[in-house]
Amino acid sequence: MEFARIVPPDQQAHREAVARHGQLTKPPGSLGRLEELGVWVAACQGSCPPRPFARPQVVVFAGDHGVATRGVSAYPSEVTGQMVGNLLAGGAAVNVLATSAGATVRVVDMAVHGDGADTPPLVTRHKVGQGSGSIDVEDALSADEVAAALTAGAAIADEEVDRGADLLIAGEMGIGNTTPSAVLIAALTGAEPVAVVGRGTGIDDAGWMRKTAAIRDALRRARPVVGDPVELLRVAGGADFAATAAFLAQAAVRRTPVILDGVMVGAAAMLAEELAPGAREWWVAGHRSVEPAHELALEHLELVPVLDLQLRLGEGSGAVTALPIVQMATRVLAEMATFGDAGVSGPAGETALTQ
Amino acid sequence: MEFARIVPPDQQAHREAVARHGQLTKPPGSLGRLEELGVWVAACQGSCPPRPFARPQVVVFAGDHGVATRGVSAYPSEVTGQMVGNLLAGGAAVNVLATSAGATVRVVDMAVHGDGADTPPLVTRHKVGQGSGSIDVEDALSADEVAAALTAGAAIADEEVDRGADLLIAGEMGIGNTTPSAVLIAALTGAEPVAVVGRGTGIDDAGWMRKTAAIRDALRRARPVVGDPVELLRVAGGADFAATAAFLAQAAVRRTPVILDGVMVGAAAMLAEELAPGAREWWVAGHRSVEPAHELALEHLELVPVLDLQLRLGEGSGAVTALPIVQMATRVLAEMATFGDAGVSGPAGETALTQ
Repeated sequence: MEFARIVPPDQQAHREAVARHGQLTKPPGSLGRLEELGVWVAACQGSCPPRPFARPQVVVFAGDHGVATRGVSAYPSEVTGQMVGNLLAGGAAVNVLATSAGATVRVVDMAVHGDGADTPPLVTRHKVGQGSGSIDVEDALSADEVAAALTAGAAIADEEVDRGADLLIAGEMGIGNTTPSAVLIAALTGAEPVAVVGRGTGIDDAGWMRKTAAIRDALRRARPVVGDPVELLRVAGGADFAATAAFLAQAAVRRTPVILDGVMVGAAAMLAEELAPGAREWWVAGHRSVEPAHELALEHLELVPVLDLQLRLGEGSGAVTALPIVQMATRVLAEMATFGDAGVSGPAGETALTQ
Repeated sequence: MEFARIVPPDQQAHREAVARHGQLTKPPGSLGRLEELGVWVAACQGSCPPRPFARPQVVVFAGDHGVATRGVSAYPSEVTGQMVGNLLAGGAAVNVLATSAGATVRVVDMAVHGDGADTPPLVTRHKVGQGSGSIDVEDALSADEVAAALTAGAAIADEEVDRGADLLIAGEMGIGNTTPSAVLIAALTGAEPVAVVGRGTGIDDAGWMRKTAAIRDALRRARPVVGDPVELLRVAGGADFAATAAFLAQAAVRRTPVILDGVMVGAAAMLAEELAPGAREWWVAGHRSVEPAHELALEHLELVPVLDLQLRLGEGSGAVTALPIVQMATRVLAEMATFGDAGVSGPAGETALTQ
């Protein structure tokens, strides 16, 4: 899978946004991170003042993971499919958060156990399999499967942008998926298993030891292919990871800003940056997860999270929680009065600026 | 001024909210701070599930400060009145943020220079003076003025709660007000002037030295009255500080939750807790300001901020930026499906919970 060359966000709009922030009725820089976010949105949109987001879209990539059979999760694999049902019914955390933040949620079954006969065709049309190989002892996917998942992820980004989405958020659902997340991040950062293993959904100490061992074994299988992102996704990822990585890369191709979520999306984002260098300039990190590997992914991508609320749920919940902040940053830059508009004096000794 | 005894948030609703969070379709504790905030809202409302906030109200307390003549601010005092006009016209940062977050903004002129003839009577009806004494060499207020300001602040809280406000946010506008903020916080925490002085709206190094000297001199005048909050507000505060402190205390009397803003509101909150012990249980800290004294105030009040976005604007902007997070925390607790509702299995080995 080849991605078109990533064009960076617009530098002219960036400069205009920085200049406009200096004219708004507040001390320069006093809105801190809100100013940076507003400038980033203007650059992504290629327009200053920027437009408030009208159609933020969350896509939850669901998939099961063979490694879950190794006792690395506090929950059984059947929960993945049950939670897909809950997401479709609107009862999951990300549904409630998205409604509050003005976003809509789409669920995509990439590799959930079961044939998906009881879920709508829109959910299963991109499905490439049921579960994945247990990555501590075998490859997650075949070559055909990883290619299909990458194609699907890019197609989903195109579908959403073509339907009018002006901001994208990737979420995930999949029992066991913090294990491949940790493996992928460790492989790309050179970290040791104990530095990337986390409690996931809430495993006990025995589960933590099983998970660390699985990460160690999977990492041994992943390291030889670390220079090839498609192979790395095939060996140590899964269909949901490959689709998410392609979705994030294609969002950048389509010049559409993204708010990243936690550790699974962070791992996929690292792969997306390998697949499409420069894509990360189109992303902002919504939050810092409790999962230790997430911090490594953020550092690697040089992204500073907007929120730090000790979240470890996934689904896109942290990214959606940051959405109102990004929206407010956009509106501040677009809607505040300038010193000239408001007849307010500048710093002592200066006369009021006029536009 | 005497405040009624503060009744803590409801412990039964707190317990019910903690139990409900354990039944929602997510790993226990996985929503981190969002869970804590939702539980706090339920306890404040005395009801689980809690109700999303329908009428969040921001009140901006405006006042000028005599110490501004000492060159402690980057902006001239006339900006306070100009910014009151901007706030009334809807052009200030807090106006834009509040609109985005679903809150309304009221501006109260407590002690702005000028007679207020060109502002609506609702804005000036509680006004107690024009400016304050320069606290490095004289008292900020007379005994009558501080009493009037305290009465006004409590009355404003009552007015807003009686009009239906279900969440209150105090904001501020006043050139020079980070100097009395720093003095009040240093007086109550025992900190040295260099530990509390900040750049405010953006002073240069010479201004920083003048500000540090003014804080040192004002602190010398404030320390003898540190045990009496009303005297401390009279000597080293101002009418806006006294009104804000009383507003925050009376909000707690009225069992109405509050999101605190930055350093000025933090200083007033410390005084409010002195005036009405236990009031702080009705407050959440919206953000951590760049102003160094703010961190000391938060530690003293044992409040952990929701956001850390390097803000230093004031107006209530940081508190309003946190409002969507508090609202989302409320809706998650109220609206998510339970394991029983959704037919989702609990942790491995457990059967699905039923309500």
